[in-house]
Order: sequence, then C-alpha cells, then structure tokens
Amino acid sequence: MKIAQIAPLAESVPPRLYGGTERIVSYLTEELVRQGHEVTLFASGDSVTRAELVPVTDMALRLNPKVRDPIPYHMILLDAVRRRADEFDALHFHIDLIHMPLVQDFIGRCVTTLHGRLDLPDLPAFYRAFPDHSLVSISDHQRLPMPPVNWAGTIHHGLPADLLPPRIGPSDGYLAFLGRISPEKRPDRAIRIAARSGLPLRIAAKIDAVDRAYWEREIAPLVERYPNVHYVGEINEAQKAEFLGRASALLFPIDWPEPFGLVMIEAMACATPVIAFRCGSVPEVIDHGRSGYIVESEDEAVAAVGRLRELDRAKVRAAFDARFTAERMAADYVQLYHDLPGARTQAAMLRRLRGEGSELQVVG
Amino acid sequence: MKIAQIAPLAESVPPRLYGGTERIVSYLTEELVRQGHEVTLFASGDSVTRAELVPVTDMALRLNPKVRDPIPYHMILLDAVRRRADEFDALHFHIDLIHMPLVQDFIGRCVTTLHGRLDLPDLPAFYRAFPDHSLVSISDHQRLPMPPVNWAGTIHHGLPADLLPPRIGPSDGYLAFLGRISPEKRPDRAIRIAARSGLPLRIAAKIDAVDRAYWEREIAPLVERYPNVHYVGEINEAQKAEFLGRASALLFPIDWPEPFGLVMIEAMACATPVIAFRCGSVPEVIDHGRSGYIVESEDEAVAAVGRLRELDRAKVRAAFDARFTAERMAADYVQLYHDLPGARTQAAMLRRLRGEGSELQVVG
Repeated sequence: MKIAQIAPLAESVPPRLYGGTERIVSYLTEELVRQGHEVTLFASGDSVTRAELVPVTDMALRLNPKVRDPIPYHMILLDAVRRRADEFDALHFHIDLIHMPLVQDFIGRCVTTLHGRLDLPDLPAFYRAFPDHSLVSISDHQRLPMPPVNWAGTIHHGLPADLLPPRIGPSDGYLAFLGRISPEKRPDRAIRIAARSGLPLRIAAKIDAVDRAYWEREIAPLVERYPNVHYVGEINEAQKAEFLGRASALLFPIDWPEPFGLVMIEAMACATPVIAFRCGSVPEVIDHGRSGYIVESEDEAVAAVGRLRELDRAKVRAAFDARFTAERMAADYVQLYHDLPGARTQAAMLRRLRGEGSELQVVG
Repeated sequence: MKIAQIAPLAESVPPRLYGGTERIVSYLTEELVRQGHEVTLFASGDSVTRAELVPVTDMALRLNPKVRDPIPYHMILLDAVRRRADEFDALHFHIDLIHMPLVQDFIGRCVTTLHGRLDLPDLPAFYRAFPDHSLVSISDHQRLPMPPVNWAGTIHHGLPADLLPPRIGPSDGYLAFLGRISPEKRPDRAIRIAARSGLPLRIAAKIDAVDRAYWEREIAPLVERYPNVHYVGEINEAQKAEFLGRASALLFPIDWPEPFGLVMIEAMACATPVIAFRCGSVPEVIDHGRSGYIVESEDEAVAAVGRLRELDRAKVRAAFDARFTAERMAADYVQLYHDLPGARTQAAMLRRLRGEGSELQVVG
C-alpha cells in the first residue's frame, strides 16, 4: 500500500526529546515499512526514517530559536502534501485540524488521528463543520466531548516490542512517577501514596516553564518533607527501561481526561504494573488485577500498593504483548486504510465490488 | 463583477473597536457594492454590510471570551470559501497566509493583500513556497524584506470621502498623537517635540496589556512632568473627526517599518497636516511641504512645528481626495481583479483574446 504519514513539525520524527505524537508517528511509520508498505513521511528535515522522507523544514520547529510562528511552516507542509496527494492510497494526518479544508477533494483517502484532548471549547463547532472526515480516537474515552463525527475507529497506541525489555525478576522496591510536573498529573498524590505505603518514590519528570511556580509552591516542599521521595530530574528514552523496569509499580494518579497515557504501556512493556486513577483512557489500558490496579482514591491506591505482590510481572508484559505493540497498532491502521471510503487498494476495490464495507461502488 | 472578500475573524467588519484590517475590508466592500459589483463578504456574523454576508462565526473572535484558539474558526472560514469558490470572478483574501495551500486549484482568481509587517523571520521561507500567488502590498516599503514573489501591485489604503470631514478654519493650536502607547510608536518623542515647541500635546491612545509596563515606566512620568501634555485615553471613531480636525498637526514619530499608517490619511481627511518620521510607508503617504513634513530627528520635528503655518489645510485635504479615498482604492482593486491571470470577466477575456496582459489564452 502507498501510505503518506503527515507529522507535526514541532519535533522531529522520532523526537529528540519529548513529543508523544511524533514518537507514535515514528513507531507506526517504521512498522509499516517493516511490513512491506511504501511509506512517505512528511516531517521536519531532521527526522530519521526508513520511509521516504519529505523534509518540509530544515529542523524541528520547537528546537529552532529563529521560529516564532509555526503556522507558515505547516502551510508549506500542506502544500507539499497537496502536490503529491494523488500518489497515495491513504493519507494519514497527525496534525489535528489544520488540513481539513484542504483535503476535501481527496477526503475519501484521508484519515486523521486526534492525539490531544478534545474537551476544548473551540473544537465542537469545528468538527461539526467537517462531519465527513474519517477520524481516529486514541481511546474511546477521548470521544466523549465530541459532537457526532465520522469515527473510523479507536486505535490504541503501540510500542515496538523490543523498545523496552521486560524485567521479570524482583524489583528494586520503589514506586515510579514519570512524566511532567503539573497539577493534572498530580505528583502530590504520588508523594502521599508513597509516604503512606512506606515505599520509596522516584520522580523522573520535566518541569515546564508554566509549571515552575507549581513545582516550587506545591511539590518541592513535599519532596523535602518526605525523606523517601527523590526527584531525579528528567530522564531520556534510554534511561526509561532502567527507571521503569526496576520499579515495583508505576504510579499514574492523574486528574484530567488523559487521551491515552503512553507511560502506562511503557511500564507494561518493562513488566512493571501500573497503579492508576480511573480517569480518561485508564480503564481501557489497564486490566485491573492483571497489568495493574485501577483506583479511585489515595486510600485505594495505598491498598493497591500493598497488593502488588499478587501481580505476576510476566503477565503484565503479556498484557502489553497482546494489546500494545507497534505491530498491532500498524495492523489496525492498515485495516482502517483499506476500509477508507476512497481507498484504491486492490483489496478495497474487491470488497467494494462485492458490496461490502463501503457505500461507494466501483463501476465497470 | 462577482467578488469575494475574505476577512479575518478577529474583529467584525467593520470592527467595533480597533482593527485596521477589518476597517479597510469594510470600506472596500461597501465601495465595491456602491460601484455596482456583486460582493460576498466572508466574515464574523456580527459584521454589518450591504454585501452578501457569509457569517462564519456568531461573533468576532477577539470579543468572545469563550474563544481560545482562532485557528479552528479560520479553517471553517476556508471551507466556506472553498465550497463557493467557483462562483467568483475574483477572491480577495485579507487573512495573511493561512489560505495559500487551499486555493491552488483556483489561484488564478485569487489575490491577497498583506496588511501586516513582513520583516518577520518565519515569512520568507513561506512566501518562497508560494511564488505564484498574486500579492498586494499596502506600501512599496512593506515589500523590502520579502523574497521575489508575484507582486500584483501596491495599493494604498483609502477612506470613504465623507467619513472624516475637513476642518479648514484655524485649529485649536494643539498637537495630536493618536494610536497605541507602545515603544515603536514613540509617544516619548511626541512629548519632547511638543515640550520644545511650546504647544500643547493631546495623546489619544489605547494601552494594551503588553504595553502597560512601558506606559508606567517611560510615558506616564513624562506626561506628569510636562503640564502641556494631556493623556485623554482612548477615543472612538466618532470622536476622531473632532480630535484630529481641531489639531494643528498630527505627530507620527514612529520608529518601526509601518506598513501603511492609517492615522496619517485620517488626519489628512480632516485637513490636518502630519509631521512624520521618515520610516516605513511615510514618504509614500505624506507629500513633504504639502500634506505635512517628513523629518528625521526631533530637532527637525520641532522646526517643522514652527513652519506649520506655511501649509494650507485645504491643500492637505486635496491631497487626501487625490490619493486616499475608498473610491480610488476600490478602483485600483477592480483593475487588479480584471488583470488576474485567471479572471473570468468579459473585459479580462477580451483582453486575453487580444493577447494583452496575460500569458493565458482563451480558446474558441
């Protein structure tokens, strides 16, 4: 299949540092290439891929100090896509919404994965204006605030199976918190849960400029107060396997409608169970009592820490292998590309000739 | 001619408060209607026009406290334009650059007026990517930082002839400063020029949140120090005729590449001369020694104040009538619409049949 992947330009694909969307685009792109598809990746020029790269900008925008306004570069991206749109059986967008008016002439071959939260006030009117565009949610929960739109499916994220090796043996006996220091991620809950459980907590998290005051006012004093809590700073991809793999559990005490929560499946890949608050995508990702525990209060979280020994780390990894590999994610997307109303693949045309799965008919 | 005017959605057309672009779109639209053209205005739903209004949003975005991100609404705007693009002989965009990838299929009937400054680091790469799009500058000076693009012309702004009546008699003997309090508008220069000239200065200007510190640190102390300087706050459109008309001169001591400077022609309409620093569009707008004085230092500005009596206020207004009416602006644009490479008007087709003015040929 000839597939275009259209990535945001904020980070390279894969990203140098943070950038959940660009990481997923990378995993999906490389896996599609591995499966034998012809993939063209529209992305920043410092991206690294086995697909054909269309380098829209010299480098990722967020790392380029000369860039003030990302919009002009995304217009150049859209024009590059437009020029080559006829070549592709499927065009897969990861850039939210800015392409929607442009693709109406070939909308039947387009699909857009919505990577962010959708409970923002400006979005319902927008999506109502584009009811025909095939959309993919990254969790079922993510759809809740949306008006009726053309959902093509929910496809959960996946990671390359060999990215984070499982660590089945006994852990180092600490709880892990990984991500950003911010009020909706609730590091304060993590600290209190660890303090009451009597286990050490290691916090590996970046602190964005907007969250600096929150860190200093709310979190830093807690970190100082509890001797078993350690802030280890930011860690990179390479350090994740160690940090997550040696932990007894990942704490994911979020307080916002997380659309997916990549760190949960990263922990699962390391065979590390997750104790997560019932919020957003959590019940879709964690199998309660198998890959972790879903809780609704700090009391329940403390109790769950006490029951971690009941979980089999091998089964945590098995849950990852069953549902959250890049191979499964790519297979889901390929199926979806075939089912697009305007798909031009042989399989899609045959299906249409048999009258299956699409309102369109191939004539002749 | 069937003409689409595509306005930004930040303000209504015309704007309730500030909004230079939306005011010009309004003046142009109403004048085109007056001249007998069929005009469709794509704008916020609280716009007021004699043209057909396509109300893209309920109200202007900047005044709507629920709006956080203007991009989704501009995508809805673009889709509304796309759906009706076939109807128009000319599509005139005033929304900077966000439409460029979309209009490539009917680019020959499109023109974009660039209303802002163009010396921003993200723009050259962008405009290089769209070299075929017909662009209009609002002054020749505005073009300086741009790469080679397809300039269709410079068209200076214009105002309805009856908007601001001329006041030919003796003035009230004060100098006027009108606009925003901000470092690039140099109200500090205006205050020093007035102080040295011995004339009162009246400052009618809004203070944006970003400029509040500048006002408090730099300008408020100067206003307090000089008893002949009065800050009168913001004034509305209706108050402008009085404020400008009763002044001996408008001071325009700018220190940035002003792309046009609407307030200069507002003063001229009131028959009030302008003392302006040689910067940006100024030499294109002011006829030195006729509609005002162009200066390069505060010393020269003080000298110019001393020579205001040499200027004939009737001739200032005559300069406005000759070059800066909405009627002239609309006529310039209509000529340009006819000359667009894809124009479908009878006049354009005839010209093409005769082989004039375009590379395109009408066959048959």
